[in-house]
Amino acid sequence: MNSELSYQQVKDIGEQGLLERLQRFCPPEIIGDDAAVLVTAPEQSLVVTTDVLVDGVHFSNVTTSPEDAGWRAAAANLSDLAAMGAFPLGITVGLGLPGEIRVSWVERLYQGITECLQKYNTSIVGGDVVRSPVTTLAITAFGQVNPSQIIRRSAAVVGDAIVVTGVHGASRAGLKLLLHPELGQKLKDAERTALILAHQRPQPRLDVLPVLWKILTPNFQLPVAGMDSSDGLADAIIQICRVSGVGAMLERRQISLPAAFDHWLTQEQALEYALYGGEDFELVLCLPQELASAFVQYLGQGAAIVGRIVPGSTVILHDEQKEFPDQVLSLSQGFQHFGQ
Amino acid sequence: MNSELSYQQVKDIGEQGLLERLQRFCPPEIIGDDAAVLVTAPEQSLVVTTDVLVDGVHFSNVTTSPEDAGWRAAAANLSDLAAMGAFPLGITVGLGLPGEIRVSWVERLYQGITECLQKYNTSIVGGDVVRSPVTTLAITAFGQVNPSQIIRRSAAVVGDAIVVTGVHGASRAGLKLLLHPELGQKLKDAERTALILAHQRPQPRLDVLPVLWKILTPNFQLPVAGMDSSDGLADAIIQICRVSGVGAMLERRQISLPAAFDHWLTQEQALEYALYGGEDFELVLCLPQELASAFVQYLGQGAAIVGRIVPGSTVILHDEQKEFPDQVLSLSQGFQHFGQ
Repeated sequence: MNSELSYQQVKDIGEQGLLERLQRFCPPEIIGDDAAVLVTAPEQSLVVTTDVLVDGVHFSNVTTSPEDAGWRAAAANLSDLAAMGAFPLGITVGLGLPGEIRVSWVERLYQGITECLQKYNTSIVGGDVVRSPVTTLAITAFGQVNPSQIIRRSAAVVGDAIVVTGVHGASRAGLKLLLHPELGQKLKDAERTALILAHQRPQPRLDVLPVLWKILTPNFQLPVAGMDSSDGLADAIIQICRVSGVGAMLERRQISLPAAFDHWLTQEQALEYALYGGEDFELVLCLPQELASAFVQYLGQGAAIVGRIVPGSTVILHDEQKEFPDQVLSLSQGFQHFGQ
Repeated sequence: MNSELSYQQVKDIGEQGLLERLQRFCPPEIIGDDAAVLVTAPEQSLVVTTDVLVDGVHFSNVTTSPEDAGWRAAAANLSDLAAMGAFPLGITVGLGLPGEIRVSWVERLYQGITECLQKYNTSIVGGDVVRSPVTTLAITAFGQVNPSQIIRRSAAVVGDAIVVTGVHGASRAGLKLLLHPELGQKLKDAERTALILAHQRPQPRLDVLPVLWKILTPNFQLPVAGMDSSDGLADAIIQICRVSGVGAMLERRQISLPAAFDHWLTQEQALEYALYGGEDFELVLCLPQELASAFVQYLGQGAAIVGRIVPGSTVILHDEQKEFPDQVLSLSQGFQHFGQ
């Protein structure tokens, strides 16, 4: 890209010009009509999810390149599909842009979106670009799921094991390192890089679904309960319990943390990042105990049984070594977008 | 609603509080998971379209109540589905809101959206609400269509009749009357009301589809070409011609106008409103001549054959009474969102 082009602004090329530049990020067969047409497989249900991201609220040029903002937005939506047990069919991208935004910024955003989508064999299938005083990104993702394999928050039952994929807290730690690089002096380069990458390039756990169905098929009776941990691990478990009308008992030391936390954070800090950090985009799934062990073994990579579903309505964090007292988890530490 | 509640702002009740208030606009069975699940009929393709609307750019409290803004946004997306030959399955609503927006404003917006959706037997199936410095509404609509009945812009062939449903120019006239009420002094009350209503409550032409398939079924060979006239009648015809690689010859006096235009606007003004006004949300369809006449008779209500597809690449406006010279239509009068 030559330097003249890289300074070109959206208002210089207009809406039509920008749309033409962005079409190269879409499959050619879906361009040019009022709407995109997608073929769904027979006997599948359609799954739909949508997110709106606003500059200065949900992303910022300080910590996030346009490529990473695009990747993260796409990943968050694919993670919502994974949380329902669905595989992606495509996404639409609605973009509000000030005229002064550089065309190259928009192209880099789309580059990040499509890099993420390509990794999961899907693509942008439609969109809209409009003028706005603030950069706004609205993504809607569509997926399909066999109706018998829909994962719902409401399906947890007493006795289920609570399985958590991957480690938690890495994304929050990565954001902290981007905002305050001086805090990472105790970390090895590779550790710092891995935590930052966890924040910039989260991986939606669509890979978990085939493993889940492989484990479950011969024994499958009940629907699987679950959701993703995009708003934090504590939030996910509390939401599942609330909707299912149950409680949970979690084993503090079973929650998988990034290895770097051991020599970098206090136990309290590490746990706070893991429980309330958010944006790890892992899955929290509730399964019969006997299936959960096999599932965790298949998954590897930090997957663990972190506790079990119990009667009641509280989510208790227990320490089997009794170093810490039992603690009731609540969402009061959660993020309130409109809070003062 | 008591006066205290009507002054409540979004920041007073927070994101969760607002979401709970808005859930009554959604079918209960779709609430509470990471994504909505929709059942598609077998053998149908999925059609997806998305629009972003920004306060001050696409709607304004000066001319548009929140109910009307909601209706118009929903109608625009349903019209895109109709333009593809698809029937709606549902929409998602992504909302960016300043904390100072009144909760009652948001509820009235949702009221308008759901009024429109109910008329067309569909509903809100998911959404997101986030903080933003500017009110932003991102709607994605999903529909389904039998693959043999997909309407595409690219399917126009030389010899086709160009059928236009309804009248054109009413929405632009209605907007003008809202902005400058003094311009309507020559109009009867009922005329003024009808024009304003055309702007505030446009009707997506999903009703046209069953008529179209009824007419076509016994004779159907070729795919039908078409799109909606949301960006203006001229735009629709020019886009169809460009994508299909054909030209068009339009008969000036065949374009249906609101009856009130006769004694209110000059012929030139009336035609400009009809061709370039936009937001009438009618359909422009290209069909074999012999089917077009029957189709127009079935439709009634201003539907007309306005011309025919010809070889070449220009769209010519012809006056059979030769009062006006032939005129080549172009999009130079079209709206460029990012233009200076």
